[in-house]
Amino acid sequence: MRLIVQKYGGTSVGTPERIRKAAERIVQTQREGARVVAVISAMAGETDNLIRLAHEMSPQPDAREMDVLLATGERAACALTAMAVNELGAKAVSLSGADAGILTDRAHTRARIANISARQINDLLGEDYIVIVAGFQGQTPEGETTTLGRGGSDLTAIALAGALNADSCQIYTDVDGVFTCDPRVVGDATKMTEIAYDELLEMAGSGSKVMQSRAVEFAKKFGIEFEVRSSFTGAPGTIAKEETANMEDVVIRGVSIERKQAKLTVDDVGDVPGVAARIFSAIAAGNIVVDMIVQSVGKHGSTDISFTIHENDLPSAEKLLQPVMKQVKASGLVASPHVAKLSVVGIGMRSHSGVASRLFECLGRAGINIQLISTSEIKIAVIIDEKDVDLAAQITHKEFGLASLVANAAAMQPLP
Amino acid sequence: MRLIVQKYGGTSVGTPERIRKAAERIVQTQREGARVVAVISAMAGETDNLIRLAHEMSPQPDAREMDVLLATGERAACALTAMAVNELGAKAVSLSGADAGILTDRAHTRARIANISARQINDLLGEDYIVIVAGFQGQTPEGETTTLGRGGSDLTAIALAGALNADSCQIYTDVDGVFTCDPRVVGDATKMTEIAYDELLEMAGSGSKVMQSRAVEFAKKFGIEFEVRSSFTGAPGTIAKEETANMEDVVIRGVSIERKQAKLTVDDVGDVPGVAARIFSAIAAGNIVVDMIVQSVGKHGSTDISFTIHENDLPSAEKLLQPVMKQVKASGLVASPHVAKLSVVGIGMRSHSGVASRLFECLGRAGINIQLISTSEIKIAVIIDEKDVDLAAQITHKEFGLASLVANAAAMQPLP
Repeated sequence: MRLIVQKYGGTSVGTPERIRKAAERIVQTQREGARVVAVISAMAGETDNLIRLAHEMSPQPDAREMDVLLATGERAACALTAMAVNELGAKAVSLSGADAGILTDRAHTRARIANISARQINDLLGEDYIVIVAGFQGQTPEGETTTLGRGGSDLTAIALAGALNADSCQIYTDVDGVFTCDPRVVGDATKMTEIAYDELLEMAGSGSKVMQSRAVEFAKKFGIEFEVRSSFTGAPGTIAKEETANMEDVVIRGVSIERKQAKLTVDDVGDVPGVAARIFSAIAAGNIVVDMIVQSVGKHGSTDISFTIHENDLPSAEKLLQPVMKQVKASGLVASPHVAKLSVVGIGMRSHSGVASRLFECLGRAGINIQLISTSEIKIAVIIDEKDVDLAAQITHKEFGLASLVANAAAMQPLP
Repeated sequence: MRLIVQKYGGTSVGTPERIRKAAERIVQTQREGARVVAVISAMAGETDNLIRLAHEMSPQPDAREMDVLLATGERAACALTAMAVNELGAKAVSLSGADAGILTDRAHTRARIANISARQINDLLGEDYIVIVAGFQGQTPEGETTTLGRGGSDLTAIALAGALNADSCQIYTDVDGVFTCDPRVVGDATKMTEIAYDELLEMAGSGSKVMQSRAVEFAKKFGIEFEVRSSFTGAPGTIAKEETANMEDVVIRGVSIERKQAKLTVDDVGDVPGVAARIFSAIAAGNIVVDMIVQSVGKHGSTDISFTIHENDLPSAEKLLQPVMKQVKASGLVASPHVAKLSVVGIGMRSHSGVASRLFECLGRAGINIQLISTSEIKIAVIIDEKDVDLAAQITHKEFGLASLVANAAAMQPLP
């Protein structure tokens, strides 16, 4: 019998009505002849609510207690889902991460899965139970509750699918799958039938937050295929998998945008070792996430360092950098809020040349100025004015023929 | 070093501010030179909220899942309390009922404590930890989460105090202790310094819901003294203990009232075996709690049976009794809403005669009609019109000299 792991995110179990819908899908999956393990997140808003309470107790809540606290959100949602499944006439049992045999290291609030002992789940599946597992959590060898960090429920589902050797891992969420671009920005954006892990990773790092990078990295490492699909429509979603020759035929597979970015440039710093370290240690001390970093070629012994952060972090970043400016002998600090990042992603880029110039020309024709450029093997990202980003996404999407290409690819691979 | 078990109820941890206050008291207790175990309830309203969600999933939610769900409320409150204690510079660790070694039977949602293995708590106390234990829960020998039913946190605290051989068990709540009568009704009602377990049991069963009866019964069975005190004032409360000679000197120790009662009388039923069983099986089928039951002396082969229920249950009770009326050959069913129960309680009653007549005369002088009478060894309860109940409580409280007597008793036993 097929074994299917399903994961329902916070919005998919955000209300009693939605929990019932998820339960219906779970039971339906079993009735179609599969064994089912469902991984459940906390009801939407619950984790944020618990974090808010914790911070009312302490500016830096004890990490062990934070894990005990946060783990309750998923346990409650699991119990409610199990009740709904039972109400539909199926047999369900809810398990905490610990019950499910998920063993982690001791890094509270950001634990890594060390091992999964699937015996308990396998026993229950053997007795025809639908097993409902609390996502996002595990326990240490000493039996202390741990959590896996934000997005940890995706990781739980993928890791369980691997440990149980599941036939399918379905990540139910509030979007239909991974699109060639945000459909709210690009009207003819198309759902991809499949995506390579690396492409999904680059998309996730570029503002298309379908999945947390950590879960995708785990899937890639162990070669666990999974499908991102909508809990509302039931339509087939996007399958994340190893890259295929098919994918490589397409130069660019997606365009992703990230708004509300800010660019900071430290001018004329000494082109000597240790300068970048000083700047970014200062930023890191404020727990500010830095995205792109670009250092220009040094001239006359000095250079410029530019980087991007979220716009909301700009005031703290400027404050943190003031004392560093003298240390690195910078001539000035230029802050540019209201910028956005546009990235084009595709593993085909590796074997196709001229992608960058095609992107820059396309943007140039529309009079859109490029402020920073950063590239990886399968991604080109540019920083532009935030006001230009919708237009930029639309013309880029068209330039690389994404709507038609993916539609063709989908046509080539009809779904069952 | 002294060992103190403290229990904080839902209202005492109902807001972040109140959790911080509870944490301050816990830390203060440790700094005064005691080892502290604190038992914590779910934040006020949380349990009801979870029950509501469960009933949206299923009219009769699976009992195992109900326990998993409800147990999260106390665990979350415990973690928050531990964070607040840590923030004050003390060392705290939160434990679930299972972690704390509380072993129960398998009766989900109303489990009984079978055994407590105090090793884990003792180890932690030995390392100077303040141990924060989730009330209301335990686990079966198979490791399944169970809950102890409403008021179960009191039971957890008392059972832990017994298992740990604690020097003191303090039940923090939103009242100052046990009063001779409800101070909102009787202005000079006085806080009792001590109360016998049996008296507290009769008071609890008579509408003074300071503690759930089950916890008091447990304390009585194992002779565990505890003190009911306010989490807001910090003043000494009321100590529940074995009866003392001192207590027996006082005829009546408290007056309690219960409003919103309804009286039902089944007239002229056959005075034969099995009649009462039929009536009360029908009522029990509707999950309606019956309080007083009075059967009059039979004449000419027939008798009347009267009983009281909560006023809200009256419509369902009448409906449930209709089909029974013919079976028991009753001539009629008389329903009287808007009645109340007044009880006088005192272990001294055992060795003092004339208490009943003194109560009846007192009420009679005020023109208050008594509709039903029920007595136990240490309690006399009467049903009267609800509109008379405040006056009845005031004159009864005065008749038995409760304000002055208890004030004297308190003066005789100055607190440390």
